[in-house]
Amino acid sequence: MKRTKIKYALNAENALNDILIKGWVRTKRDSKGFSFVELNDGSCLTNIQAVIDHTPEIVEVLDKVGTGASVAIAGSLVESPGKGQKWEVRGTSIELLGEADQETFPLQKKRHSDEFLRSIAHLRPRTNKYGAVFRLRSELAQAIHRFFAERDFFYIHTPIITGSDCEGAGEMFRVTTLEPGSKESAESDFFGKPSQLTVSGQLSVEMFALSLGDVYTFGPTFRAENSNTPRHVAEFWMIEPEMAFADLNDDMDLGEEMIKYLVSHMLDNCSEDIELFAKWVDKSLMPTLETILADPFERVPYTEAINILKKTKKQFEYPVEWGMDLQTEHERFLCEEKFKKPVYVYDYPKTIKPFYMRMNDDGKTVGAMDCLVPRIGEIIGGSQREERMDVLLARMDEMRLEKEDYWWYLDSRRYGTAPHAGFGMGFERMLMLITGVSNIRDVMPFPRTPKSLEF
Amino acid sequence: MKRTKIKYALNAENALNDILIKGWVRTKRDSKGFSFVELNDGSCLTNIQAVIDHTPEIVEVLDKVGTGASVAIAGSLVESPGKGQKWEVRGTSIELLGEADQETFPLQKKRHSDEFLRSIAHLRPRTNKYGAVFRLRSELAQAIHRFFAERDFFYIHTPIITGSDCEGAGEMFRVTTLEPGSKESAESDFFGKPSQLTVSGQLSVEMFALSLGDVYTFGPTFRAENSNTPRHVAEFWMIEPEMAFADLNDDMDLGEEMIKYLVSHMLDNCSEDIELFAKWVDKSLMPTLETILADPFERVPYTEAINILKKTKKQFEYPVEWGMDLQTEHERFLCEEKFKKPVYVYDYPKTIKPFYMRMNDDGKTVGAMDCLVPRIGEIIGGSQREERMDVLLARMDEMRLEKEDYWWYLDSRRYGTAPHAGFGMGFERMLMLITGVSNIRDVMPFPRTPKSLEF
Repeated sequence: MKRTKIKYALNAENALNDILIKGWVRTKRDSKGFSFVELNDGSCLTNIQAVIDHTPEIVEVLDKVGTGASVAIAGSLVESPGKGQKWEVRGTSIELLGEADQETFPLQKKRHSDEFLRSIAHLRPRTNKYGAVFRLRSELAQAIHRFFAERDFFYIHTPIITGSDCEGAGEMFRVTTLEPGSKESAESDFFGKPSQLTVSGQLSVEMFALSLGDVYTFGPTFRAENSNTPRHVAEFWMIEPEMAFADLNDDMDLGEEMIKYLVSHMLDNCSEDIELFAKWVDKSLMPTLETILADPFERVPYTEAINILKKTKKQFEYPVEWGMDLQTEHERFLCEEKFKKPVYVYDYPKTIKPFYMRMNDDGKTVGAMDCLVPRIGEIIGGSQREERMDVLLARMDEMRLEKEDYWWYLDSRRYGTAPHAGFGMGFERMLMLITGVSNIRDVMPFPRTPKSLEF
Repeated sequence: MKRTKIKYALNAENALNDILIKGWVRTKRDSKGFSFVELNDGSCLTNIQAVIDHTPEIVEVLDKVGTGASVAIAGSLVESPGKGQKWEVRGTSIELLGEADQETFPLQKKRHSDEFLRSIAHLRPRTNKYGAVFRLRSELAQAIHRFFAERDFFYIHTPIITGSDCEGAGEMFRVTTLEPGSKESAESDFFGKPSQLTVSGQLSVEMFALSLGDVYTFGPTFRAENSNTPRHVAEFWMIEPEMAFADLNDDMDLGEEMIKYLVSHMLDNCSEDIELFAKWVDKSLMPTLETILADPFERVPYTEAINILKKTKKQFEYPVEWGMDLQTEHERFLCEEKFKKPVYVYDYPKTIKPFYMRMNDDGKTVGAMDCLVPRIGEIIGGSQREERMDVLLARMDEMRLEKEDYWWYLDSRRYGTAPHAGFGMGFERMLMLITGVSNIRDVMPFPRTPKSLEF
């Protein structure tokens, strides 16, 4: 018989004479003449309860079944007399697929700390919380692809290994096939020149916006930054849409539409898993998500945001002045206290932004935008790109960049340039927003951080 | 006015009084009193024709408009009197967004070699062929996510940087933040130990199969192999499903269902782009794709496949004997000449397969399978995994693997082990199958190969 996933058994329309379920035992409780087994197969948060009458053969198997064991139970699906569940399995046979030594199995039924669970990242998806995290992670990734597909954006795989150490978004990892300590030059290396792991697919994906129109990347990105914070990891996933014939307003519109789409999609499709987080992880999760959906995001020019921050009585650790980059405390003040909803800050000083952002007419600011959301701070950073060759070259001179390194990038301005804009969204930050999880390590299958590369 | 993508203009139901289109000029032809402009915006293969009556202002703009320029044309959408197109734009204004110097623009209207276009990979998506390649690439990736979503598989992002140099699937790139030539030990490196780019997410994703049930990865994968062939690149994308409570037959069923789903989805949704390849790239493309859909795939045990290869009169470069790995010539003979359809070969000698494949009762073969398709050869390689701890440990001893390196992998067999199976499919190989493109470099945005890391 084909196994039925527990998700479908729990949502059955009718009782079933024959059913086969398989999964991992969460608890087993023995009673006189029968046993209760709570089984989970990862298809959903809720366990199914199986009630199994004792026979000599069954008792022999049940004796070896403890928390964490994997079993197959055959029987019928019947209405449950118990509270809180519609269906249960009346088991007529149980097969032990894999034992779990009760002395050493680390996931006995009790509450475990996130720190401890990180040390057994290979087992933590068998807990309620992390099972839910990774189901939500999967659905969020699916929703992102759907969002773009519905809008005729093409998905582009920009390269992970890059020869341009000039992407400018952060410290980079080197990639090599030379032996450690080898004195051979980069010419003898695999690619014949220095190579790194990408920090952003933007420059590459711009080439595709300027040929296919609306495009996006969704892939892993790397930062070799030696910072141990709950917001940083060395390897994470990023979404970078890029639109031809679009300006900064179109860019902000797309970001807002995307965040609302994702929040709304997740609430509609994953309510059971999200409720776990609303109940146990972050009591303010639902109000936060509802705020995001409720109103248009605030849009404030950087200069005005600075004035707001200067005028407030609130004390900040970092003093506020025009020309500075906003710190997390400023970002959170703007969206959590001042506007009480997501906020776009736009038109930043050119001095704190990369060369490719479009110069505004004031000559001082560029068409950049950050989207700030409650609890997370910056979730999106983007800009209209400088499409005017002369302005772009002047900016590169100002920032002392080697134009030869960018010959192909400049070609896109040389031949049929067009206004275009895009942004980057940290996938894990979006998932943290949706779950209320506060440490990025806890929304990644196997997080990579300084001095930590287990699994 | 909002721009209309050319794909929607060409498929309009009715004429439109007002329309705004933007894109890149493919050709311009001047006539007495008016000009024809063929415009493409990447949204589809077909250009739209704009007919623009001359006025002094318009002529001034048109003089600067050549192949490759980007323009915005406003006017009305009217029925085309010309053949081969239903609609055309009657342009009343044209704006030049970006010139393209006709002396140097490399994509003048003529046929270019694939080799030449590889040297301008940043511009090649502006050609018919490569625009189609990357639209198909995008749709194929979308279809893969949909295939798994419809079957309740969870999408898992397994790590790219890995500490296990023992994944065993090929030569690996090292990842480091130490300076080139540095004599510092791995302990001083970013992760405090040697780190590499992944060659397969399988071992990691097995942990998720054994907690969430049905899962898959879809991400970049790396091989530091110094081979310059039309089938190999250093960085490519791979799909790796993994199913709990599944055996080798379930695995072959899933692979067959997936290949058929993808071929059928692409034929249904991308006929215009696929026809380009059927017409210009591979005349046998349509029959090949139809064969894939027509019948169940052949399933042949390895031992029987060897006997077939020994009995045929065909001469092979590599002599055939039991215990050898099949070469491309053997694979292609089996599916192109012997069975004339996709073929699974399964139950391979254990000596040519990795430690994690499930030992068969004969003690000589393991539950491995390869799916061979016409023109490509192997497109899927998979196995049932060894879930029995004692057998797995014995195999690791035989192959002299350090068990300490695999402590977490072994935990999954120690606690609630269960039968499971999965496979890997090369994304680019699937795209080559669907397009008939014969060089893997020509289905990747910016291919990475030995001594080649431009863009």
